[in-house]
Amino acid sequence: MTFESKIKTIEWINNKSRMIDQTVLPYKFKTVDIETLEDMYFAIKNMIVRGAPAIGIAGAHGIALGAINLSHIDNKDDFLHQLQQKADYLKSSRPTAINLAWAINKQIELAKNTIGSVNDIVEVLKINAKKLENEDIEINKKIGENGARLVPNGAGILTHCNAGALATVGYGTALGVIRSAYANDSSIKVYADETRPRQQGARLTAWELTQDGIPTTLITDGMCSYFMSKGMINFVVVGADRIASNGDTANKIGTFTLAIAAKYHNIPFYVAAPLSTIDISIDSGSQIPIEERSKDEVMIVNSKLICPEGVNVVNPAFDVTPNELISGIITEVGVLKPDFKISIREVFKIHR
Amino acid sequence: MTFESKIKTIEWINNKSRMIDQTVLPYKFKTVDIETLEDMYFAIKNMIVRGAPAIGIAGAHGIALGAINLSHIDNKDDFLHQLQQKADYLKSSRPTAINLAWAINKQIELAKNTIGSVNDIVEVLKINAKKLENEDIEINKKIGENGARLVPNGAGILTHCNAGALATVGYGTALGVIRSAYANDSSIKVYADETRPRQQGARLTAWELTQDGIPTTLITDGMCSYFMSKGMINFVVVGADRIASNGDTANKIGTFTLAIAAKYHNIPFYVAAPLSTIDISIDSGSQIPIEERSKDEVMIVNSKLICPEGVNVVNPAFDVTPNELISGIITEVGVLKPDFKISIREVFKIHR
Repeated sequence: MTFESKIKTIEWINNKSRMIDQTVLPYKFKTVDIETLEDMYFAIKNMIVRGAPAIGIAGAHGIALGAINLSHIDNKDDFLHQLQQKADYLKSSRPTAINLAWAINKQIELAKNTIGSVNDIVEVLKINAKKLENEDIEINKKIGENGARLVPNGAGILTHCNAGALATVGYGTALGVIRSAYANDSSIKVYADETRPRQQGARLTAWELTQDGIPTTLITDGMCSYFMSKGMINFVVVGADRIASNGDTANKIGTFTLAIAAKYHNIPFYVAAPLSTIDISIDSGSQIPIEERSKDEVMIVNSKLICPEGVNVVNPAFDVTPNELISGIITEVGVLKPDFKISIREVFKIHR
Repeated sequence: MTFESKIKTIEWINNKSRMIDQTVLPYKFKTVDIETLEDMYFAIKNMIVRGAPAIGIAGAHGIALGAINLSHIDNKDDFLHQLQQKADYLKSSRPTAINLAWAINKQIELAKNTIGSVNDIVEVLKINAKKLENEDIEINKKIGENGARLVPNGAGILTHCNAGALATVGYGTALGVIRSAYANDSSIKVYADETRPRQQGARLTAWELTQDGIPTTLITDGMCSYFMSKGMINFVVVGADRIASNGDTANKIGTFTLAIAAKYHNIPFYVAAPLSTIDISIDSGSQIPIEERSKDEVMIVNSKLICPEGVNVVNPAFDVTPNELISGIITEVGVLKPDFKISIREVFKIHR
């Protein structure tokens, strides 16, 4: 059973990319229209749109916008050359989530393979941007259904950061699992980690689940073991920014710590992600680039310092959870189980 | 070797208890003078003074203030009866840290055993308040020396919350270990957990270590595993609010999660605390009352909401780290090692 969520995070409409501005949630709900690839770079880098699947779609939209912006060029080779340059630039907006590169590469490949004029290519890219967008919701609903079967009756489910409707086009990956589980069993309870530094759990997950009427309790990032030891959390599901071919998973900083706590308490720890998050070109998580973000994200909350000036601060945005801590990877084609090296290889034989 | 720290967190002076107001650090440094037991209750409950050893001394000061406030009573029995009532009230200000009850009980016992007039008792309680205060610094310096020997050369040391000069009269327990280690080896590095919800790591630990010139890096609570897996953290030391006779340790929420992460990475995890933090009347951590504090501490940072209104929030202020995760308990009389049931019993045979 799936659950209807009204949140549409990013949408191709009237030759623009309309997105919910996630930097002002939950205080304000507003959308912004992005009209150039350069503005899309800014929107991704500054996390107006965030979440691996959502920035994948943002990348696809960005290429369509870049193509529109370049449509005055008659020569197809010149056009493709300049589009490729813009694509490389857009890919560099955030390094860790593979979905961004995945979607941009899909668009560029399509552009190169399209027979016809520059205008034909532009049209094809616009259509494909919309197609990828629509597919994302369908993929999430399948992830939700596949994951919901794993959730024990009446479970307390912990999630980290926001792998929800707001991290995708709609429905969500980890929160897709929660939405589908809730549709089957309204006695489940959700624990949302605040997720410092940027507080996506407090600002986004708590907001979107509350919007959908799913009972959610906000906790701070260090509290997980307390509730696990009390038997109040019995299932953990998180999203992913990039999964290596051995199952090692990069996700929001703090995920690795959660996974260790879950293992200690013998609680299943699942990753929910579309196949497009799996990077079969790398053997292990050590090859995933980890984005280092501004110190201000740690030091400043609600526009004010939380620490003395002059203290050192580091801000890695992601960590890598080793495959040995992961019970399974919930995808749109089923749940991959350890040994992930084998299960990932098998699934890519069929689906790519 | 010890290290001189100029911070004096709480001081009996001119028949008043002068304390650093820790609710306004690091933005403002100010002291407040407490003149009644009732004001001391407020100061402890609202964390103007906090940290198990410091609130122990605050309790001792509070009883001296209560005695002064009751010194108009001529009848000694009436005086002792009313002082006992005030003592029970003061003890109820915070339930988890045992040092508060320990110090208050010490004072009440002394009052009862003092031969002489009410005024004699008042004088004795004032002298003992000062004596306990002075002893606290000496105890911390011994903890520091005992702990410093355990710190590997050039270690990256993680600590949680604030078990520093600000959590004691001065010098600190966990930060006492760090100060002593730094005096021996200035190549050590400190990682301070932010410690949500109240951010004592960011506000207090980062402040006091920076004041003392000890290199400190502020990280968020979920980041520990990232730095442990990179070999940048190789020693963990935290304070304690109450230690059961089997070594189970109540400390600031999030400590348990850290201890699990340390175990996973094979990193030593030490608790630094005076013997007065050990509660030999209880068999295990399950008997330690865990204070539940206001939801606002989670929901509001820098006077502004961080989440949608109406979301559920829970705020247990402490968790209990099971003894199996603790490498040792650093006290003023030496480092207690597992099996803690035995080592704690042995040390209390000698020292009480």
